[in-house]
Amino acid sequence: MTYCVGLKIDRGLVFMSDTRTNAGMDSISTFRKMHVWEQPGERVIVLMSAGNLATTQAVVSLLDERCKAISERHQTVLETPSMYQTARLVGDTVKEVIASAAPVGEKADSYFNASFVLGGQIKGSEPRLFMIYPEGNFIESTEDTPFFQIGETKYGKPIIIRAYDREMTVAEAVKLMLVSFDSTLKSNLSVGLPLDLLFYARDSFKIELQQRIGQDDPYYRTISDGWSKALKAAFQQLPDFPG
Amino acid sequence: MTYCVGLKIDRGLVFMSDTRTNAGMDSISTFRKMHVWEQPGERVIVLMSAGNLATTQAVVSLLDERCKAISERHQTVLETPSMYQTARLVGDTVKEVIASAAPVGEKADSYFNASFVLGGQIKGSEPRLFMIYPEGNFIESTEDTPFFQIGETKYGKPIIIRAYDREMTVAEAVKLMLVSFDSTLKSNLSVGLPLDLLFYARDSFKIELQQRIGQDDPYYRTISDGWSKALKAAFQQLPDFPG
Repeated sequence: MTYCVGLKIDRGLVFMSDTRTNAGMDSISTFRKMHVWEQPGERVIVLMSAGNLATTQAVVSLLDERCKAISERHQTVLETPSMYQTARLVGDTVKEVIASAAPVGEKADSYFNASFVLGGQIKGSEPRLFMIYPEGNFIESTEDTPFFQIGETKYGKPIIIRAYDREMTVAEAVKLMLVSFDSTLKSNLSVGLPLDLLFYARDSFKIELQQRIGQDDPYYRTISDGWSKALKAAFQQLPDFPG
Repeated sequence: MTYCVGLKIDRGLVFMSDTRTNAGMDSISTFRKMHVWEQPGERVIVLMSAGNLATTQAVVSLLDERCKAISERHQTVLETPSMYQTARLVGDTVKEVIASAAPVGEKADSYFNASFVLGGQIKGSEPRLFMIYPEGNFIESTEDTPFFQIGETKYGKPIIIRAYDREMTVAEAVKLMLVSFDSTLKSNLSVGLPLDLLFYARDSFKIELQQRIGQDDPYYRTISDGWSKALKAAFQQLPDFPG
C-alpha cells in the first residue's frame, strides 16, 4: 500500500508520502511517490501517487516526458494555465494509461487502479489542492475539507481531524503529518520509511523545504517516541470509568 | 459496517460493540451485535458479530434456538466442554449458514460474509478469546495479541496498540475501549452509538457489568470531549519541526 497526505494551510501546502511498495509480503521496495515540477517564479506543482506502481510510474513518466518534447508543450504540466487545467491533464493521463494497460478490457476499478493528490500554485491564482480518482475525475479541497489522504488512510485520520487548524505554522503542520504517519507506520506493514516531506509557501513560486526523513532522523525519533508517551499520558489523565 | 473489540486483560475480558447497521447510506438501523449466554456459576459466553446482518442473525438464532431444544443440547453453547469447542461450534454454524444462504454457489468471500469475536470462560479452564472468520476457522488471542477487532478496525487501532497493558484495571480498559470507539465514530459514519459494554471478571462465572452507552451518557461525553482536548494538548506539547 502507500500513505500520502496533502494539507492546505493558510501559509501554503504541505505534502508527505511514504516510499514503500509491495507486491506481496516478500517483495518490498522503496519508490518515491512524490513528484515535483517547478518553474521558479511561475509555478510549483506537486503530485503524489498511490496504487498500482506500473500505472503511477507511467502517468508520471508521460507527464514528465511531455515537458521535454517542445512540440507537445501545449499539453504539459509546465504550460497549463491553471491548477484546475493541471488536474484535468493529470486525470486525462490517468485515463489514458489505465486504458492502454488494459487491451482486454480492464476497468478503472481493476488492479491497475491509482489515485493521486495534486497541489501547487500557478502565478495569477491561489494555491490549490486536488484529489484525482482512478476514473480520471477529481475533487478540490475546501475550507471544510482542507486535506486529502490516499492509500492506507484510516489509521492516521483521527489525529488530523482533531489537530488541524488552518492557521497552524509550517512547523506545526509538519509535526501533525509526522504524528499521522507514525500512527500508520506502527499499525500497517505496507507503509514504510523513509518519508518525503515538501512544504510550498503560498505566493513563493519556489520550493522552500523538501527533505527525506528516515529511521534515524532525530526529529522523527523525537516525535515517534514522544507521541507514544504523550498519548499514554493523555490517556492516563482522562478519568477512569466510574461504573 | 460495524466496530467490535474484545480485549483480554489479567482481570478478565472486556467487550464493546457499536449498534449501527446500514444497507446503503439511507438505510440505517440499530441492532445489537453483542450476544451473551450465561449459566451463573458455570459459564459465560459472549459473541460479537460483524458483516452481513442476515448471516450474523441466523448464526446467533441457530445457536440460541438449539439451547432451547433439549434433544439437540449436546450441540449447544451451553453444553460445550471448553471454549475451544465453543469456537468450533460457532465456526461450524457460520459455515452452515453461509452454505444454506447460497444455493447458487456463493462462496465465503461473498456478500454473506461475517466474522465474530467470541470470548468467555467455562468452569475448569481459563478465560479465552477467539476471532472466527467467515470460513469458519478461528484464531485465539495470546499474550502478544491480546485483543481482536472486527468491522471498521483501523481508526481505533493505534490507541489500543499504545495504551494496552495486561495489568490494567477494568476502569482503565473501559476507558481505552471508549477512546478507541470515539476515534472510530468521529471518522466513519458506518459506526454509530449507542455502544454495548460488557465486562467479565475472571473466575466469576457471571456477568459483572453490562450496559448500553448512548450519546447522553455522561462518562462517554467526558471521554469524547476530554480526549479531543487531551490529544490536542499532547500534540501541542511535542516539539515543533525545527527545519
